[in-house]
Formats: sequence, C-alpha cells, structure tokens
Amino acid sequence: MRQASTGTSQIPVAELSRRARVASRQLARLSNDCRNEILTKTAKTIEENAQRILDSNALDCRAAQLTIAAGKMSSSMFARLRLIPRNIEEMATRVRDVARLPDPLGRRLAATELDENLVLYKETCPLGVIGIVFESRPDVVPQVAALALKSANALLLKGGTEAFHTNQTLVEIWHHSLESFPSVPLEAVELLHTRDDVMELLTLNHDVDVIIPRGSRELVDFVSRNSLIPVLGHGEGICHVYVDRAADVEKAVKITLDSKTQYPAACNAVETLLVHQEIAAEFLPRAALELMQAGVELRACPNTLALLKGSKLIPAGEPDWATEYSDLVLSVKMVGTLDDAIAHIHRYGSGHTETIVTENNESAKRFMKEIDAAGVFHNASTRFADGFRYGLGAELGISTSKLHARGPVGLEGLITYKYKLFGGGHTVAEYVSGARRFTHRTVVQ
Amino acid sequence: MRQASTGTSQIPVAELSRRARVASRQLARLSNDCRNEILTKTAKTIEENAQRILDSNALDCRAAQLTIAAGKMSSSMFARLRLIPRNIEEMATRVRDVARLPDPLGRRLAATELDENLVLYKETCPLGVIGIVFESRPDVVPQVAALALKSANALLLKGGTEAFHTNQTLVEIWHHSLESFPSVPLEAVELLHTRDDVMELLTLNHDVDVIIPRGSRELVDFVSRNSLIPVLGHGEGICHVYVDRAADVEKAVKITLDSKTQYPAACNAVETLLVHQEIAAEFLPRAALELMQAGVELRACPNTLALLKGSKLIPAGEPDWATEYSDLVLSVKMVGTLDDAIAHIHRYGSGHTETIVTENNESAKRFMKEIDAAGVFHNASTRFADGFRYGLGAELGISTSKLHARGPVGLEGLITYKYKLFGGGHTVAEYVSGARRFTHRTVVQ
Repeated sequence: MRQASTGTSQIPVAELSRRARVASRQLARLSNDCRNEILTKTAKTIEENAQRILDSNALDCRAAQLTIAAGKMSSSMFARLRLIPRNIEEMATRVRDVARLPDPLGRRLAATELDENLVLYKETCPLGVIGIVFESRPDVVPQVAALALKSANALLLKGGTEAFHTNQTLVEIWHHSLESFPSVPLEAVELLHTRDDVMELLTLNHDVDVIIPRGSRELVDFVSRNSLIPVLGHGEGICHVYVDRAADVEKAVKITLDSKTQYPAACNAVETLLVHQEIAAEFLPRAALELMQAGVELRACPNTLALLKGSKLIPAGEPDWATEYSDLVLSVKMVGTLDDAIAHIHRYGSGHTETIVTENNESAKRFMKEIDAAGVFHNASTRFADGFRYGLGAELGISTSKLHARGPVGLEGLITYKYKLFGGGHTVAEYVSGARRFTHRTVVQ
Repeated sequence: MRQASTGTSQIPVAELSRRARVASRQLARLSNDCRNEILTKTAKTIEENAQRILDSNALDCRAAQLTIAAGKMSSSMFARLRLIPRNIEEMATRVRDVARLPDPLGRRLAATELDENLVLYKETCPLGVIGIVFESRPDVVPQVAALALKSANALLLKGGTEAFHTNQTLVEIWHHSLESFPSVPLEAVELLHTRDDVMELLTLNHDVDVIIPRGSRELVDFVSRNSLIPVLGHGEGICHVYVDRAADVEKAVKITLDSKTQYPAACNAVETLLVHQEIAAEFLPRAALELMQAGVELRACPNTLALLKGSKLIPAGEPDWATEYSDLVLSVKMVGTLDDAIAHIHRYGSGHTETIVTENNESAKRFMKEIDAAGVFHNASTRFADGFRYGLGAELGISTSKLHARGPVGLEGLITYKYKLFGGGHTVAEYVSGARRFTHRTVVQ
C-alpha cells in the first residue's frame, strides 16, 4: 500500500497543499473514463468496507454520547453523526450517481474566429485544489470527494473532530481506490486534523483555489473572515412565502405547510410568512390552524394577532424577522402591498429562496424579476431549492453568494474555464497598425 | 438639478452604499432600451462637456507636476493621468460601444421541466452593487460606469487622489444623464474620496456585492486582504513564451518580439522566454539580436549565457523568474523538455497567459490542456489576451482568479443568475412520499 493515509497529522498543511497541487495536475491529465473508474471502484470499496466504516462510526458515537451527557452536543448533531447500514449503501449509490453525470470538463462555452486562422475557444477545466471545512455529517466525505475527482480537482477535507474516526476510514477507502491508478498521488484526497490546520489552510492561496465551508453560520463567517482564498459560501436561509391578494388559498395553505414542516431543519425551509392584508381574513385562520396542528409555533405581527385573537400566538419581535429558526417556528406578518412584501424580503432575507403564491401572473412576474435571491418561485414550496430536485445530479451545497455559483451548486461549482487561442504566428502589432482587422465571427459548433 | 453629486464626501460610506443598493433595485426594473438610452445620453454629454473635462484634468495635471518634481510620481503614471481631446472622443465612443452590446440580462442559461407544470429556468440577472478601486487613469470612470449601468448594477468608485477633479467631473456627467430618468436615484453612480472610505467600503458586505481592484499588485493585495466582500481580482501578469523544439523559428522570433515589445507595460506582455535546448542554437542568437535591437534588456540562465557568449547579457537571478517587469526587460531560460517548461510556468507563472510556439500539434495539445492559466495560446502573441481583441466588446479588467470570471472580463463579470421555478401549487412532500416523480427533462428553448 502506498503511504499517505497514515501519519498525515505530522505533515505540515503547507506541504499537504503542495502535494495536493501536484496531484491536481495529474488528475487533470486523466480521461473522463478513468475518473469515472476511480469513482465506481470507490463505491464498491465503500460497500466492501461497510462494517469497517460502521465500526469507526461506533467509536465516534461512543465518544459523542459522553459529550451529549455533558451537554456539549445536541441530539440533532448526534443524529447527523450516526451511520446505519442504509447510509453506507446511500454513500455508494451517490458516488455511482456522480460517475454517471456527463463529463464537466473540456466543454466549449464559446468559439470565436478572431481572424483567418486565429480561433479562440472558451473551454471548461478543473479549478485545481479545493478545501472543504464541514461539521458532523460523515457522508460529506464520499459525496464531495466524488464531485471533486469527477471534475479532476484535488481535495483537502477538514471535518468535525466528533467524526474523526469515521472520516479517517472514509478517506482511507479513497486512498485504497487511488492505489490502482499509479499516476495519481494519494494526496489527491487528504484529511486535515486540527483547527490550527484550518487556519493555516486559509492562508495557502498559492496552492488552494477555493474554500467551501459547510455548516453553521458561525463556521461560514469564521472561514470568510479569515480566508485569503476565495470562499464559495453556503450562507443562511431566511426564506419567505408571500401569499398575494390574488392567491389560491388552497395552494397557499399547502405550500406554506410544506415549506415549513416537510423538513424544518433545512436551509430552504420557510422562516417568515408574508400575507397580503386583503386575503388575510380568508387565508390566515385556516393556515394558522393547520400549522399549529402540525406543531408549528407562530410568532405574529400586531395585525395578525388582532385578526387571530383567541389563538395561541406569540407576538413577534424585531429579531424574529432576521432569524433562521431551523425548527417548527414561523413568523407571520401582514403586508399592505406587493411592494411591501418585496421590501421586507430585501431587508431581512438572505437571498436564498423566496416564493410568491398568486394567480396573478403580473404580480408573479414582478416578484420574480425584482426579488434578488438565488431562487424565486411561483406557486411552489421553498423546499424545491435543492440540487437533486433541480436535476443537477449532486449537490455540493447551496450558495447565497452571487459570484461564481449561486443557489444549489453541483459540479459546475468546481470548474472554471480557460481561453485557448490557436494561431499561425499572429502578432498584435499587425492589428494595431491596421494591416489586419479582427473578424470576430462566432464559430458554429 | 437633483442633489447627489455635491457634498458626497460628507455622507458616510455606509449610507452611500445603502443608497446604491436602493438605486440598484430601480436599475433592475429598467428595460434594455432604457439602460442603453442612459448610455447614449452620457456619451453625448461627455462630448458636449469635453472642455470641462479637460479643464478639470488640467487642474489635476498641474498638481501632479509638482508631485513629479518632488519625485513622488513616475512619468508613466503622469502619462496615464493626462487627457487630450482624442481621449474624450474615445471615452464617448467606448460608452456607445457598450450600449450596442446585446442585453446581458434575462438570458436563459438552462430550462428544465422538473415535473408536469413545474418548470425551472436559470436566468442571468445583475450582481447589484459594484465597488471599484482604481489608480490614475480617469477613462476607467466612463468605461466601468457604462458596463455597470448596461448590466443594471449600481457603482461606487474610488479613484486615485491625483485624478480627483477629473473623476469628479466625469461622475457629474453621469449624474446629469441620470436626471432624465427620474425613477433611478443619482446614487446609481457615486464617487468615494478617501482611503478610509475604501476601508469602510470593504466591510459593507450587506450592500456591496463585489469589489474590483484595478491597479498595482500592492493595491490588489491590499483590497484582497481587507475585504469582507468577494473580490474580482486583476492579478499579476507573469506570462511566458515557450519555444518548443519543433518551433518554426520565424514565427517564434516574431511572437517573442510582439509579446515583449508591442506594449511592455501591459499585464499580458511576456516576462520570461523559455527555449527548448534542441532549438536554442538556431533560435536564440537571432531572437537575442532582434530583441536587443528593439531595446530589450536580456537576463539569461547559465546555458543561455554560454550559448550567446560575447553578447551583452545579464545573468538572471532567482527573483527574475518571479518578476513582472512591465518594461523592456526579458528573462531567458533554456529547458530540457516540454515537461520542464510546464513545471517552470506552474512554479513561477501567475496564471495569466502562456504561449507555446511549435509545429507539433501533440505538444501544443499537451501544453494547452495541462497549463493552468486563464489563456493558453498556440503560435500567437501573449498580447492577444484582451477583451476587445477577444471580441467581448468591452473590458473590465483581466482576472487571474479562477472563480466567477477568468481572463479578460467583459459584461459577463458583472452578472449572476437566479433560478426561477414556476409551479402550480407543488409541494416536496409528494415527491418524498413517492406519490410523484421528477421528470428532469431538458426543455428545448
């Protein structure tokens, strides 16, 4: 077995990053078939090593239970850490799914003839080296490694210490597959160990091309503030459902319920319900009843409180409009106009996903044009904002940043492009002097 | 005249940014025709106010001459500051050119039917508010403002203090045009004044979406290190010409000369010439002669010195391989193989533009696939790396960053996209339960 998986904690992060850079150059030379072979081999190795992964996970879970007893870990965090045999099968399936995606590299985005025998192509290529800092969920390791290797990128991972043994075993499984591809150094996928490692990683902008933080807002903020490397940010999800005056009440109730209760911990769950005052009397009593029956706590504005007096509502305070509950809590606000709804969303929203429920196409059109968010929906649940549901095949996370990738990010987030210019000895002086002129003709591909 | 252009130095940057955000929302509502009208009106106003611009520039130039006398400004910096009537005409022409470009907004990048009556579109839209920090050249103001307004973005500009009066007059001209469009606040284009303003701007990530530094490496580094806002970086240009063993010597000499001497101050000028040892005896004496006749100082590796003994060459030191001379200086290195050339470029290059001169298509293919740079050229001068030459119609700068926009950046650098989902009351629960299944069918557009 080639050495790399053992003792990496002794190797400085700067050296690991340099090795990752070298590995990324080798990955970039592989064919799509070869990259897919690495992935399918790994999926098989995951299945063959299911018990080993579960054993490592059991070690982590035992340690975590002590932490829970000491009040230092939430039960939801523990739930994300714990693996059952079905999770291992899913890991393998996800890796095979990524292998089946079309090759993201070498795609021509544009082709222009600049002049006779001088042709410019814009073609997709890998980013290079990706650093990912994540919390808890060990299934991030095979998922992100599959996306990275599919797109010929090397990967440095730093997971939560609570999942240390599980993550280590999963990375060893990747190394085991890579052993069959002698041109690729095992350091194509490597694990970092400490918070200090992360601090150092964030300064290595010569060897690392992008940092992806996945986890709490605190984690994302910490990484963004300390990184000299561009950050592909997964931000907060303060999402809204706006029930317009022209809403179909049936649809509005159904969409609100799904957006809040289908999986309240997700970033694409709704946090604030905005209701046009002219439909409030018809919509709100029914929606409130169904939401409360589903166990949702409602925090309401004064107008809503007045309308629903007698119901068990809590008055909403200013912080409620800016809070991602990630739980069965929903703030409710009545608005006078569509403009008020748009203004509220722009003031408090995080640019994640916003839904309008209306039968008026003009209002829908305005909402979808003017709202500045990664996803703007008409008559659909906010919960659709997801890479698998969008048909991207896999998801790296959801970005609320506007640069590079926005919204659910699949393989596209891990590629860039380069310009390839093919000439015949052409020089710029000939064009500056006027001896030659550019044609700038789009080449039909 | 609506107030905004005067006394902005009294308004805190945070307030200016908030107003820019409001203005950006209004810009996003304008039609392409209306945005083009703002541009053509401004082009006309620039022409009508040519004398006023020249007068302001004369003020700046007088102050600058004192600075030159005190040794605090280089003559090339002064040359970039000084405007002549032809420059004013060019400013107007460039603004009109941008108006003629196709609408960058509302373009469909993808369309997917997720299920019956549930359709997802990925559409281009503005970034929002753009901050640009630049040095010296006042022609940046109309050029960048045209690109920003064409793509419905608001703009905060901070130019060099040496160009203060010129920049102020140019921004006033934009305000004058905007007065005819009452729905758009004049703060759509605004000038910042001090270094402290910049420091504050870099923290306002709620209201500013991207920062673009244009100028020296020091400026770009300063902005990158201090910004909480994503930076679209114009980095260094350490570009290489590699003359392969199978090069056509005629082409190689011509390309080397153009890449170095056509405009040595440009970031896309070559800094290091790499020569395969098997062609060195044929190529180097001729190239060295022509380069030296053109006034180029050559700094050479030991093998080159030995080959060209008798010529007036300077021995190259380690720092030479990592220096952007921006001047008539060229470092020269002999390499044993194509792999050596690629390794040298990856070690010292800045990922800007790299050229191979060869008649061997396999070598060219390998070079262009494996070299990690924004531009990889075959038998063409590095000087072609430019937005106008690429046919992008306008250029915001050249990015050596790999996220978002890479290489020469035109309008595409100022847009992002959003996902628009049109449903009929769809909820995710139906798909999770298995009652409905996604079709994920690409919609032919």
